[in-house]
This record gives sequence, structure tokens and C-alpha cells, in this order.
Amino acid sequence: MDRPFDARLGANENVFGPSPAAIAAMAATDQWMYGDPESHDLRMALAAYHDTTMDHIIVGEGIDGLLGYLVRLFVTTGDAVVTSDGAYPTFNYHVAGFGGTLHKVPYRADHEDPQALFAKAAEVDAKLVYLANPDNPMGSWHSGDTLARAMESLPSGCLFVLDEAYVDTAPQGTALPVPPGDPRVIRMRTFSKAYGMAGARVGYAIAAPELITAFHKVRNHFGMNRAAQAGAVAALQDQVWLTQIQQKVAIARDRIAQIARDNGLEPLPSAANFVAVDCAEDGRFAKAVLDGLVARGIFVRMPFAAPQNRCIRISCGTHAQLDAFAAALPLALAEAKKG
Amino acid sequence: MDRPFDARLGANENVFGPSPAAIAAMAATDQWMYGDPESHDLRMALAAYHDTTMDHIIVGEGIDGLLGYLVRLFVTTGDAVVTSDGAYPTFNYHVAGFGGTLHKVPYRADHEDPQALFAKAAEVDAKLVYLANPDNPMGSWHSGDTLARAMESLPSGCLFVLDEAYVDTAPQGTALPVPPGDPRVIRMRTFSKAYGMAGARVGYAIAAPELITAFHKVRNHFGMNRAAQAGAVAALQDQVWLTQIQQKVAIARDRIAQIARDNGLEPLPSAANFVAVDCAEDGRFAKAVLDGLVARGIFVRMPFAAPQNRCIRISCGTHAQLDAFAAALPLALAEAKKG
Repeated sequence: MDRPFDARLGANENVFGPSPAAIAAMAATDQWMYGDPESHDLRMALAAYHDTTMDHIIVGEGIDGLLGYLVRLFVTTGDAVVTSDGAYPTFNYHVAGFGGTLHKVPYRADHEDPQALFAKAAEVDAKLVYLANPDNPMGSWHSGDTLARAMESLPSGCLFVLDEAYVDTAPQGTALPVPPGDPRVIRMRTFSKAYGMAGARVGYAIAAPELITAFHKVRNHFGMNRAAQAGAVAALQDQVWLTQIQQKVAIARDRIAQIARDNGLEPLPSAANFVAVDCAEDGRFAKAVLDGLVARGIFVRMPFAAPQNRCIRISCGTHAQLDAFAAALPLALAEAKKG
Repeated sequence: MDRPFDARLGANENVFGPSPAAIAAMAATDQWMYGDPESHDLRMALAAYHDTTMDHIIVGEGIDGLLGYLVRLFVTTGDAVVTSDGAYPTFNYHVAGFGGTLHKVPYRADHEDPQALFAKAAEVDAKLVYLANPDNPMGSWHSGDTLARAMESLPSGCLFVLDEAYVDTAPQGTALPVPPGDPRVIRMRTFSKAYGMAGARVGYAIAAPELITAFHKVRNHFGMNRAAQAGAVAALQDQVWLTQIQQKVAIARDRIAQIARDNGLEPLPSAANFVAVDCAEDGRFAKAVLDGLVARGIFVRMPFAAPQNRCIRISCGTHAQLDAFAAALPLALAEAKKG
């Protein structure tokens, strides 16, 4: 970019940053050595955290990297894959890259629609069906119980790819309550959001050992940054910091919602580290609001697909950043209304 | 591993470490932000270093990661690929992973044999032909001019994959003297060896812009660690440090060679940051020597294929580490001779 933004509120990063213990662990890492190709310590720590064993855990270069490996394992030319229209584009990128055919299901009242996704998966004989809970870009969510019940209609032979990148800022009960070894589902998690380590590139997945073993046959074995491995272990151990982040994110979500209301706009309920704000008109109007914000140094983004693209998406920021957003929004809105 | 080794001389890492400027740049990086998906600053710096433009440069998660993308781009089920028998196994891993058929050519007097490789590529209609210069695991090398002349017999329709991971410790004139945009070849480089940043995972490749563009269609766009990007820029700018590393590596190579000779063994000439030592018998004997070293806390490795597996491979180490190697080698040798 040509100049830094005053408020970087577009990438759903965690401006409050990683645990100081994670920062210290990364700084203390001797980077002349390769990282552990097995990510042993990190997988052990994650297994303990999830009350399972490390053969249920795969670590990779962000959820994006793991999604790439997963699609490679399951999808070849012409294979059907199901996702929501307007959901995570990087998943779609990997599906297209391996020649899969994407089938899209609309959102239902700004929520991803598990029943419709699984019904479509059955209809098209999909290899994979993707859903993020909480959802990006809308911030909406289902309870884990709702998803577990919906999974009763997941067709056999179709793997449920559950992206839980934002689950660490969601209410208790949002995580899927199935055993880590359930062969019907792979759950993706990340240190990029609540743990504040987007730059480090540490994602992981929880799945049945047979599926984890398949990853080991295709992944970049020395792909993990050594400092990132150490940082993730330290971050996971600092759950006090995570609790503080959850509180800061909740406060920032409330503030974004209040700023929206102060401007006559409706904020959507969010369980993620961002809030989608309904600009009450169409995608062109929302884009005009977004452009007005960007022109004022406020980097935000917006959903890709209608009707969700009537919204703009604002990541949680510091008080100062949200002050800047609050100052810019009325001006951007007024400009957009003038057309 | 169960206990740390006294001397970690098996992974061809650079124990002398990265430039202090690189360490400082990594420590100063805010990891709550994603890295730049374009690696713009790093690619600009690399382009300047190689006197080219950034559309000739792709950055990835180590050479391993780039080799994976490259094989994905070129190889599908049944496609022929050529390499040397006993050369870099990770390349072979990627070829197998994408269903390619590997054809192997023997080393010639412990050197990779470009004429034979290119002749085999023509014979089997190969999509890719791989060669490392300097070579791993033997440390042998060809002049860049020799390779450039050999390329006259590279079949059209076959891409030459030149792994120059170890070129930064090689004599002047080892790098391939062809323009960065030569469409016949892609050259792989890394910050893991002479730059001492193996844990950071920064590799790059130099190729024609059309090929670089193809990488952008399959790579993990947010795969690069943000601190690693900054560290690599700083490392590249500290060429004084690189010169000091080159000197330290040369001294360590000489010391390893002297230790070998002191024990009646022949060190092979090396342009890399390790030395292959000929144990003068077969692979079983060399493995016994290696086991004896490992049992004494000296981590070394050995070539996979005969007759190169008569050697053990010792990475350059500190004075203290090579002292430990010097102390352990006669004992390991005596044990191996007892059988």
C-alpha cells in the first residue's frame, strides 16, 4: 500500500497482539536451526488442550495451508465441493486450483445454512462441504449442538470441513461437541485470530488419525517456522491472556455496534473479532461507504456476495482506532448518500 | 529426539547464525499482522540483488515449499521427471506425491552428471530435470559455465530445476550465468544455509515472469511468516556478515577435512557448508561409523544411494563442535572396524 492506514480494521487481525510469553518465546528462538518437522511439542500441547492425542492433530502454515493440503487429498478434476455463496474465498481458490466443481448455497438470514449445505452435498455427491462457525464475513454463528444435529444429514462419503478460526471469541457452546476422532469432520483452528499471531502462520486441524496420516504424505514437512512453533506453545499456555483478549474483543464489538447505531445503521450480532454492519442498501452503496472510510485511512472490508454485500465488515480495534472509525463513518455515509 | 546432541552437524544448518540485523528485524516484527502476501519488499530486494525485476522472483516457504508448487504445476500422473540417484529426497517426495515417474541417473565420480541428466530427460520426455549445484549430499560442484554449456542439450519442453541452495558458500563462478528470464530454467535459492535462517523458512526462485505468474495461481498466498520476510530483507542487506560466514564455513570445511585425514579417511572437496568424508568401504561400514558418532552425541548424516553411501556427511560446526567430532571419530571408526 502507498501509505499506512490510520486504522487497520480490515483483515480480522488481533490488534491487541499475542501473549507477551509468545513474543518472548519467538524472540528467544534460534532461527539457524530448522523447526521440528513433526511439530511435536506444539501437537502435544494442542492434544492436551483438546483432551486427545497428538495423532489427532496436524499443524500447518495457517488454516489456508491446511485447506490446500486437504483439498489436494480429496478433490480431483470434476469432484463436487459445497460451500456457501460468499464464504471464505481461499477455500474456493484451492478447490478451483485442484479442478473441483464448487456448488454454492445461499446464506439464510445472514447465517450459513448447515441443513442446506448438507442437502446440497447429498444432491451433488460432494467430497467436501465447508462451513465456518462463527462465520466470516458475517460474524454469525450456530451453537455446536445445532451443527452436531445437522450432521445427522451429512451424506456418508462427504467430509465436513468445519472452520473454527473464530471460535475462540465465540460464546461457550459454539465449538462442535463431537469427539476429536469423529471421521465425519475435520475442524480447523488458528493462532491468527484470538491468539494474535497472524504473521506467524500457525494453523492446526483436529481429525481422525487416518486423515491426519494422509496429511503427512503430502505436506511440506519443514514448512513450519521454528519461532512460530515455540510462540504457539507459549500462547496456548497463556490462557489468562486469551481471556483478556476475549474481553477486549467483546468490548470492541460493542463499541463498533454502538458506532453503527449512532449512525442509524444496524450492527449484526457477532461471535467473531469483527462486526458486519448493515448499511441498509445494496452492495454499491456499501462499497461507497467502504471507499469513503478507506479514503479517510480506515481500512475495512465487505462481503463479496449479495445480499450480504449490503454490509461492511469492521475488525475489532483499539479505542483510538475505533475513535477514528467513529469520526470517519458519518462523513463516509454522507458522501455515499450523495452518490 | 530423546536428548540434545552435543554437536548438531547433520542438517547442514548454519551454526554461526543469521546476521544480527536479521535477528533484530525478526524480533522487531509485530506478528499480530499478516505478512505481505506479495512479499513485496523482499522480492524488490532480491530483484535488486540479482539485477532483475521482481516479476522474476517468487518467494516461498523454503525451497521445499517452492519445489512442491513447481511439481504441482508441471507434473501429473505418469509424467516423467529426471534426477540423480541419491540426490535431494524432498524433490522426489513431491514428484511421487503428484503421481510423476522418477527416472534416476547415477552420479559420475561423486558429481551430478548434467550431460547424463539431460540425455535421460530427452530419452524419457521429462517435464522436469533436477540438479543441485553445489550438490547435496556430496558437496561437489560444477562451474556455472559447465552447466550453461550442458544446457545446450536440454530438451525443449523440459524445465531445468537448478537448486542453488548451497551456492552462497561456493567459489565465484558456480552460479548459473544465464539471464533471470531464461525460460529453460528455474533457479532455487534459500536463506536457510549461508544466511543462517533455516528455522524462518524463506526460499525463493528466479525464473521467467510467465513461470512466476503460474506460481501465483497455486501458492498459499498468506504462507510467509511476517518476521521471516523482514529478517530475510535484513539478512540480504548485510553482505558483510555473509562474507564472514563464508570465511567461517571455509575454515570449518578445512578443519573437517583435516580431521578426516588425521583418521586416514579421504574428505571430498566441497563447495557447500558440509563435507562428505569417504569411509573407504561400503554403506554398511559408513552406517556403523555414523552410528558410533551419533551414540557419542555427534549428529551427522550420510548419502542414501551407493556408492555415495560409503561416505558420511558432516555439516560445518563451531570449533568446539568439531573438537567433539575429532574426539569421537577415532572411537567410532575403531568400533566400526571391529564390526
